[in-house]
Parts: sequence; C-alpha cells; structure tokens
Amino acid sequence: MFLRNQWYIAAWTHEIGRALLKRRIAGEPIVFYRTEAGRAVAFEDRCPHRHAPLSMGIIVGDKLECGYHGIQFDPDGICVHIPGAESIPKGACVRSYKLIEKWGWAWIWLGDAERADEDLLPQDFRWAAEPGWQNLGDTLNVKAHYQLLVDNLLDLSHEAFLHTKTIGNRAVADVPCKTSLHRDHVRVTRVMYNCAPPPLFVKARGFTTNIDRHQDITFAPPCYVHIDVKAIPAGTNDLSNALQWHVLNALTPETEGSTHYFWALPRFFSQGDPEMDKMLHGAIIKTFNEDFEMLEAQQELLKDRSLDHRTIATAADAGPTRARGIVQRLMREEEAATTH
Amino acid sequence: MFLRNQWYIAAWTHEIGRALLKRRIAGEPIVFYRTEAGRAVAFEDRCPHRHAPLSMGIIVGDKLECGYHGIQFDPDGICVHIPGAESIPKGACVRSYKLIEKWGWAWIWLGDAERADEDLLPQDFRWAAEPGWQNLGDTLNVKAHYQLLVDNLLDLSHEAFLHTKTIGNRAVADVPCKTSLHRDHVRVTRVMYNCAPPPLFVKARGFTTNIDRHQDITFAPPCYVHIDVKAIPAGTNDLSNALQWHVLNALTPETEGSTHYFWALPRFFSQGDPEMDKMLHGAIIKTFNEDFEMLEAQQELLKDRSLDHRTIATAADAGPTRARGIVQRLMREEEAATTH
Amino acid sequence: MFLRNQWYIAAWTHEIGRALLKRRIAGEPIVFYRTEAGRAVAFEDRCPHRHAPLSMGIIVGDKLECGYHGIQFDPDGICVHIPGAESIPKGACVRSYKLIEKWGWAWIWLGDAERADEDLLPQDFRWAAEPGWQNLGDTLNVKAHYQLLVDNLLDLSHEAFLHTKTIGNRAVADVPCKTSLHRDHVRVTRVMYNCAPPPLFVKARGFTTNIDRHQDITFAPPCYVHIDVKAIPAGTNDLSNALQWHVLNALTPETEGSTHYFWALPRFFSQGDPEMDKMLHGAIIKTFNEDFEMLEAQQELLKDRSLDHRTIATAADAGPTRARGIVQRLMREEEAATTH
Repeated sequence: MFLRNQWYIAAWTHEIGRALLKRRIAGEPIVFYRTEAGRAVAFEDRCPHRHAPLSMGIIVGDKLECGYHGIQFDPDGICVHIPGAESIPKGACVRSYKLIEKWGWAWIWLGDAERADEDLLPQDFRWAAEPGWQNLGDTLNVKAHYQLLVDNLLDLSHEAFLHTKTIGNRAVADVPCKTSLHRDHVRVTRVMYNCAPPPLFVKARGFTTNIDRHQDITFAPPCYVHIDVKAIPAGTNDLSNALQWHVLNALTPETEGSTHYFWALPRFFSQGDPEMDKMLHGAIIKTFNEDFEMLEAQQELLKDRSLDHRTIATAADAGPTRARGIVQRLMREEEAATTH
Repeated sequence: MFLRNQWYIAAWTHEIGRALLKRRIAGEPIVFYRTEAGRAVAFEDRCPHRHAPLSMGIIVGDKLECGYHGIQFDPDGICVHIPGAESIPKGACVRSYKLIEKWGWAWIWLGDAERADEDLLPQDFRWAAEPGWQNLGDTLNVKAHYQLLVDNLLDLSHEAFLHTKTIGNRAVADVPCKTSLHRDHVRVTRVMYNCAPPPLFVKARGFTTNIDRHQDITFAPPCYVHIDVKAIPAGTNDLSNALQWHVLNALTPETEGSTHYFWALPRFFSQGDPEMDKMLHGAIIKTFNEDFEMLEAQQELLKDRSLDHRTIATAADAGPTRARGIVQRLMREEEAATTH
Repeated sequence: MFLRNQWYIAAWTHEIGRALLKRRIAGEPIVFYRTEAGRAVAFEDRCPHRHAPLSMGIIVGDKLECGYHGIQFDPDGICVHIPGAESIPKGACVRSYKLIEKWGWAWIWLGDAERADEDLLPQDFRWAAEPGWQNLGDTLNVKAHYQLLVDNLLDLSHEAFLHTKTIGNRAVADVPCKTSLHRDHVRVTRVMYNCAPPPLFVKARGFTTNIDRHQDITFAPPCYVHIDVKAIPAGTNDLSNALQWHVLNALTPETEGSTHYFWALPRFFSQGDPEMDKMLHGAIIKTFNEDFEMLEAQQELLKDRSLDHRTIATAADAGPTRARGIVQRLMREEEAATTH
C-alpha cells in the first residue's frame, strides 16, 4: 500500500526518449516514451486487450503500438487503431498517468488526475537545477521498503558505524541531533563543532584542519529527504574553503520490497570539474552500497515482522518515527476520501 | 484447476521407453515407462510409502522399484514386494493412470478411468499419422497458462506483429477472420487473396508471386488447436505448387503457470527431405520463441489479475472467448458431477 | 512449528570464536560469539532498535556492537551503550539464549530458560568425547524437514537401495528389524548374520570374509539418532578385527524446509590415522549426499501434502512413526503449558 495522490519521481528526464522505458512505480507497471514534439508520456504497461506489456511494442510516430496484436494508442492513451477491426469500441484506452518535468526529473501522479498540482512538488528539490550549483546524480535500486531508506537518512548517526571509510566520523554519533516535528514535514539538524573531517570531505575539499560540520535534514512526504550539508574549517566561517552540497534523495517505491533511489548532489565548489564529478559519483555509490547491504538485510529480517515493530527507541528515532506518522496519517486520509 | 475427464497428450510415444520419464501433467507429478512387452505405463510419481519420487527408482523387468526402500509395483500399480516385510498390505498400490497411444503420442486420462473413451480424442490430430503427409514435431515448455496459448493460436492477427520475420504479413491483421461458434468447438477462418507470401513460405515453397493464403483453425477442448494451412500462387488453384500443412498444437497444462507444448507439422510437399525437415524445425522453434517471450510476459502481468480480465475486446476475440467459455462450462459440469 | 524446550546442537564448539557466527535455528535467526574469557554467547540476530542483523556488527571486547547505529550489548544481552543518547531505556536488551558446551558441541535452549537442564542432553552423544574412541565429524545442510531425516535414519532398509556403493547390502533390507517403543525414545535393532560386508566396511577394516553385522539405533527427541554399529568376521566374535563405530546424528531444524546436520563418527579402530579419517570423512559425505538427493525430492513432493500422509506403512515404519508420535505429544504438552 502506497500513497497515490502524491508526486513520485519516475525517471530522469533524459531517461525518457524515443525508446520505450519500462519501470514499476509503487507497484504499478508503467511504460514511458516521448512524442516527436518532445512530450513525455506515461501509460500503464499493460495492453487493455490481452495484458501484453506495452513496453514490448514500438513507437509509431506519436503513438504506441502493442507488440502483440498491433493495437495503437495516442499520447493521451486513447485507442486509435485495432488491426482488422471496422470500428474502435467507444472509450477504449490504456490508463495514462499525469506526468510533469521539473528540475531534471519526470514526476508521476498515480492518483486522481484532478488533484495533481505542481505546487505539491517538494520544493527542496529545486536545488538540482539551481543556477551556480553543479549537479550530479544517478538512479539506483534497493531491495528494501522505501520507509527503511527514509529511516536511514533521517538518522545519520549510522554514518559513524556504516560509513567510516567515506562520510562517517564518530562525531555524527556522539553529538545528539535536534528534531523539529511539523504537521507535514520533519527537520533534523546536527552541528558538530571542531570535529575531524571524514575521508570524503578531505578528498573533495582538501581540509587540513578540523571542521565545523552542519547537517540539516528535511523529510517531506511521501519519500523525499533533503540534506543540506556544510563543512567549514573549524572556527573560521570561511565559506570559500567550505564544502557545501545538498543531498537530494527521492525514494520512489518500486514494490513493497524494493525502491528506486534517485539521488542528486548539487555542489557549490569545483564547478565544471569532471574529475571531481567522477570522484564524487564513485564515492556516493560506494557509500550507498554500504547502506544497501544493511537495508536489504533489514528487509529480509522484517519478512515476518511489522515494519513498525521495535523494542528499543532512541532519541534519534523521533524524526523517523514522525515521518512514518505523517505517511500513515496521509494514508488514512486517502482511504477515507476513497471510501466516503 | 484443470479439466480432468479429458485426454491430454503426455508424451511422444518415443519418449516413453525403458528409462523412467518424469513429467508433471495438469499439476500432478507422473512417471512413465514401458514394460518388456512394450506397454506404456503411467503412475503418480510419488511412492505411497514415503513420498519418494518413483522416477528416482529403477525398472526391474516389468516392475517399478522405488529407489528409497525398494518397494515394487507391477504395471497396474499394484504393490507386489516390500523388502523385509512378510506380507503386503491389502490394496497397497500407487495411483496409475489410463494411457493410450495413438498417432505418435501417448494420451493420458487424469479423471475417472471408466469415463476414458478413445472416441473422445481430438480427431484432427490424426493428421500427424496420415499416409502421404510427412510429419515433424517436438516438445517445448512455456512458462504461461495454457489458455494464453489457446488465445494466441485462435487469433493469428498477431502474426503480423510478432512474427514479421517468419510467418507474418500485414494481411493476417488487415483481413478480418470469420468465427463460427459451436457447443464443443470453435472455428476461425481467414482467407487472404493475393497477398505477399511471408518469408518462411518463400523458403519452403519458393513462391515468386503473391499467394492466396488460407487459415482454417479449430479449437477442441481442453487444449487442442488445429490449423489447416494452404498457400497457393495467387489466382491459380495450382495445388502442385502450393504450401499445404497442418499445425497441430497440443497445449498440455503442466502447472497453473506453465504448459507443455507438443507441436506437429505434417506437410504435403517435400516428402523425405531431411534438409526441409531441418529448415522447418528451426523456423517453427524460432517462431514459437517469439510467442513465448510475449506469453511469459503476459503470465507475469496476470499474476494479480484474473485470466479473463479485459477492457478492450476485438472482433477477433470471439473465437478465444468462446474457447474459454467451453472450458468453463466443462469445468462446471465436472464440478457438478463430483459434488452430486 | 518446532519444540522449544529442548536442547538443539547449534554449532561445534570450534565454530564459535571471536568472529560472529550467523545461523538460523528452528526458524530463529541467531548470532554466536565468544567473550575474551571464552564464554560462548547466543543472541537473537536482530537488533531490537531497527532489525539490523547483529551478525553484521563487530565484537568490541566482550560486547557486541550493532553495525548500523552502534548500539552495544553485553554478553547477557543487556544494552549498555547507545551512541548520542544520554541514557539507556530501562530493560533495553536483545534476546539472549541459554547455551552450554558439552562433548564438542554448543547446545542451545530456545524455550523457557528456567527449564533448561543439562541432564536433558541426549546422553548417547557422550560417545563423541569418549576416551579411547577417535572422533570425526562435520556440519551439513539439507533442504528437507528434520523429521524426514529422522525417518531416514530409523529405517536403514534404505541402505540396500540408496547406498549400494558405500554402506548398503541386501541383508539390511531382507532381515527384518526389531523395534521397541518407549515413552520417550525408540530403539530399532537389526542383526544380519553371515552377510557380505558392504564396500565401505571392507575399505575400513579389510574384511575378506562375510560378517555378522549389528545395527542398534536409538531415537531421542526432538532430533537425535544414535546408531551403534558393529561388524565382526562371521561367526568369530573376534572384536579385535571388528568394525565398531557410533554414528551420531543431530538433526537441528533450520527452517520448516531445511536442517543442519551435525554428524560425528567416533570409532574404536585405527586411532590417530589421518588417512583413515580422510577416507571415512569422504565416504560419509558421499553417503549422506545420496540421502540428501532423496530427502530434498521428498520435501519438494510434500509441498502440498501433510508430512504424515502415507498410504502404505511397512513393519519398518513402526520406529519412525513412534518417533513422530513422541514429538507430537511433546508439542501438545508445550502448547498446553503455554496456553494455560
């Protein structure tokens, strides 16, 4: 069960083109393509005739033709051709989804199209397209429920144990975080003064002294975690030698047990430096793989438990717990709206 | 759930010999062998003592000996020896199935043995042993429900899209078929006058002109589709240069998600030509593999849907729909006969 | 469902050390390690904070530290450190299991700790540490329910069919066994006078004549089978040239469909002979692999049947049937003790 009246990142805009893209989003099989004029289109990846995946078909001009019996759909999903048939049944169509492109991503709305409102996009994700910031990003897939990823990102104390070789230092675990709980978002902040810079920070910015390290994390439902990161030579306020980046994490559910992980890392230093891009891309993938090993092990152990079962809760759990609470409240609201 | 009071092809006769053959038919594990005198025998592949698969045993004369504790069964399934036991419990036996051999195949009856009647065999399958016709055939396995294969064969318009490199041409999709619906069978015919011959037809018969192409398809329950094919140089009626063959398709269910595909292709031309055999065998396998990719994708998408769910039905669906209707009626009749 | 108030072999003592050992016992994920002072410890392999497997953590002195958020547990399972937290919630702990080491193995008690009594260990397993007997042993894993392995070992008539190349001869099947049924154990004996020695016996002891072969098998719940084996040159009583060994089989359930097979083979001949060790180890593994192929095929066929379903029962089934009966009675007793 996933929230439906929400925007989910479905793809990077450059992933949708004149070849069919097949991807499952929140349990639903979906096929994506782009019209000759450049409009991005999303259909249920299932021909309404005989359940053939439309992603096994071909693009004919602006239309998608099913690879099994040649039925064609226009970019609105309307059936416009059935080979050998004299007429087309009224209302014949494939389910199409509302899709908008913004900040480098294609966002899909799975629920009621009339409620799809661009203003509901998570505004923090504008950083991926902010002038003066150099972006970097990729798509990963994790065999774990997306809420386990939200938990992971809202409690960064794990960096001290899981990521010692990249972004972790003991300070992240030892300095308590501050959590502020809001009706529709959660914010977790931690400032670590005069701590040793983690290995990746040294590589990226050449720190030779201790740093003041700032983490400012915001969760927005259903699956968005924005981390505003600053590291400044300790006690200096010298932003010109600082590390400043945003980690944008869009944790689009694929199934109940897997997640598409769209991440972006817009940075304020080393603009137009492909060597830096390459180094950071590799380091981020390495770090996430450390997370994924743990997340997939959790998912495996949670097979016969509730996702919310826990017998030890720490102070750092306040953020993740509220994030789940928000999603649960929205689920109840959606359910109520559907049944009444 | 499968029909039980029906003949299913279980094997080619040459597959059953003095080595044990293990095969699941309509969900049931079955073991086959042949007695010294040549009688083909089918037992449940499960020793009634401790669930050892009898297919892991050995043939001792006419008896099958379980490989675990050495219990022996005669060709009627009667237990005739238990090592170390002084006597054999009365009635001890393994379930045996009625099996007849006809037209090159072994046919099994899973239901009430007293209702097994040779006259109920699908008579169209006699073509596999018709004098003057050169047969060819094989066994394949598809990870899809057998009714998806029936659908496929009763609506050949898909040839124009899925089989463009072998047997497809646009005419198959553009010329509407004629369907005649009967209580216990379905017939779908299509005649395409003056159309381009598909690649395989050219290879087989060297057509240099357009052809008149005839397809005459008959479904008989539970899983038999016979296609009578003729292709004649357009407007000539010249049968001596025609392509004439029958495609016999026996779609024996293996499980709810897989099918044994016994196919035969008796032809009227190029008798005794091993090169033609080889070419046709290769081309048929290639064609079926194109189908299987689609069928297995359908099966995957149907995991959480009813097999009969559909929101677009075309004129060409009349045949497949009635075929399913016949099977459903027979299922209800079997169920009623069992419960009353 | 497994008995819980029972000792199960969890590991060889040498398997538990200063590296974390992860093993599922009777369905429960468990992690094992040894303190600096040498005490063997067993915890549920699941951090009570967020379901991270503790086996992905590290040992810090005598404590186990979770690899995700660094929470630490002492050897009694008490939570003693939560990074970044000012205090530890009262009662915070991971489930720990009673573990004792005896005769070379670590035995785990899954149920009520206060009922764990060392006197309940299967006393026959003392042979693994008996002075004057040379032990040999290993751990295997079989994809079959442990009761299928008990069945196998209590009815050795199968040796005549499954193990013809190692320990089988026809006599095992032809000579009836004697079974004596007790409230809490089962004994099956068979003496085969003047029979041909099986291949492995000849290899081990160089028999050149027929032998008198004795098998004395005892089952103790939940999963212990002890086989006392003697083979003496026929009619001689010459124990100095005899083969004497004990086969100790501990069939610890891993899941409903798999079993850890801890076996030991203490022998009375060829002490301190590494060539004999090597030969016997290889032969035993080979023999067990013959069993496993059959056991895993049974398990597969039993997917949709009750484990107790059977339509032929032989005289040799009296032992296995009673063994299951004892386990069932104990299950009922445990259930009654839990619910009342």
